[in-house]
Amino acid sequence: MITPRPAFMQQLNQAWHTQNSLLCVGLDPDIQMMPTHLQALPIEQAIFEFCKTIIDATAPYACSFKPQIAYFAAHSAEHVLQDLIAYSHTHHPHIPVILDAKRGDIGSTATQYAIEAFDRYQADAVTVNPYMGFDSVEPYLSYSNKGVIVLCRTSNAGGSDLQFLNVSVDDHTRPLYQHVAHLVADKWNTNGQCALVVGATFPNEVKLVRDLVGDMPLLIPGIGAQGGDLNATLKAGLTENGTGVMINSSRGIIYASKGEDFAQAATVAAQGLVQAMNALR
Amino acid sequence: MITPRPAFMQQLNQAWHTQNSLLCVGLDPDIQMMPTHLQALPIEQAIFEFCKTIIDATAPYACSFKPQIAYFAAHSAEHVLQDLIAYSHTHHPHIPVILDAKRGDIGSTATQYAIEAFDRYQADAVTVNPYMGFDSVEPYLSYSNKGVIVLCRTSNAGGSDLQFLNVSVDDHTRPLYQHVAHLVADKWNTNGQCALVVGATFPNEVKLVRDLVGDMPLLIPGIGAQGGDLNATLKAGLTENGTGVMINSSRGIIYASKGEDFAQAATVAAQGLVQAMNALR
Repeated sequence: MITPRPAFMQQLNQAWHTQNSLLCVGLDPDIQMMPTHLQALPIEQAIFEFCKTIIDATAPYACSFKPQIAYFAAHSAEHVLQDLIAYSHTHHPHIPVILDAKRGDIGSTATQYAIEAFDRYQADAVTVNPYMGFDSVEPYLSYSNKGVIVLCRTSNAGGSDLQFLNVSVDDHTRPLYQHVAHLVADKWNTNGQCALVVGATFPNEVKLVRDLVGDMPLLIPGIGAQGGDLNATLKAGLTENGTGVMINSSRGIIYASKGEDFAQAATVAAQGLVQAMNALR
Repeated sequence: MITPRPAFMQQLNQAWHTQNSLLCVGLDPDIQMMPTHLQALPIEQAIFEFCKTIIDATAPYACSFKPQIAYFAAHSAEHVLQDLIAYSHTHHPHIPVILDAKRGDIGSTATQYAIEAFDRYQADAVTVNPYMGFDSVEPYLSYSNKGVIVLCRTSNAGGSDLQFLNVSVDDHTRPLYQHVAHLVADKWNTNGQCALVVGATFPNEVKLVRDLVGDMPLLIPGIGAQGGDLNATLKAGLTENGTGVMINSSRGIIYASKGEDFAQAATVAAQGLVQAMNALR
């Protein structure tokens, strides 16, 4: 019989402390970027071997893993994603797995997506898109032990197209992403299972979100390849006990080397990033 | 050798005229709602049989089909979705197939989702979410013969949470969904391949969007189960030549009967809706 996994928030809090790490390792298995010797394998095998090796190589330094479903779906490799999450749960049971899917749809369809994320893939948390409003997020919330991580301020160039527009609600005029932070913190987070995605490319915005949401966890992409400032980001995002953030790094770790030493290179990159972060906490 | 399919916009224009229909048949195969005799089959077979039968039963009355990927993904049935789209292309080549996936992610990930929609599933168009901005939509646009249908105003209750907030950009203060309509029509639609999702529950908003976007096609859910007014919606959304809209119906057609006569019932429901629409054009 399989023991049910603890609630995502409990896992995350525990991982922050026992792993002494704020690092989320993003698994974006792009076949073009993989070590040459893996590219020679059938693609599904290459994706599995690559991700499994990265998981094992970085597990001592990670507070979470975040596989990006698009990289699997593009190659009909959903079963590989399923196998990898099961592998991680078995071999690194204390590390929560976030399915990065950014789903967003009406209630009846969102229910199907929640089944996909939580029943099929057995993810501990999922990323979702807020554009369609509360009833598009609600079906995920009924899985009360799972994490629901809502897009707030994203680190890409186009992130400003909508998220940075000022909206006036009640007595507040503020950018849309801040209104989303407020909605999630004060209205949608009825079970204490929500978190937010806030890009590191805008540390002062991380700070504004932190001030709006109390101790809610923030998933922060944009360090490394996208150029976010680690020190400023941590200063802006950390909670009083020195946690509260998952700093995501994907390419900087998983593609640290394209050679046969990619696992060691990933270990070194993950360890280095954790040391750099811990020196700044 | 396989002949490449015509561009989505060309297919759609042709289907509107030769089929004399504005009806988009939504394929949301919920096993609980299917006829009892199909529920007895293995789930993947049930989904295939159900959707294939609905496709054949409604093809004479449809200007497009719209499978919702979540219903397949929840049951590890991606290959069934692939087979169904291939079946539709083979047996009803003149009817475009829209993959309802509402994807939204940064450029490198969006590229993978575009591969999923267009290379893997061979969909003629895909629905996408605008929250992450232009660079999250751009990778789909590089498939210049494919349709890119952007969420604008959705018909669910929570649709107002973000979409109805007023934003001020340049000299305009208007709800976010209208700004999205403006962005897509005036900036993002560089190849003439974009369309918008606008819910029928708000006919006056359909009209406001129509006035902003010229002849751009609108995909309009919310007729039937969600209570939208057909006459008001058509009046608001039709272009001068009496087309310009795809009125989506899912449950009202595909679950018209739970008995062994579900195919005939779907035909009757589709034919009835097309007749009702054509009487109002």
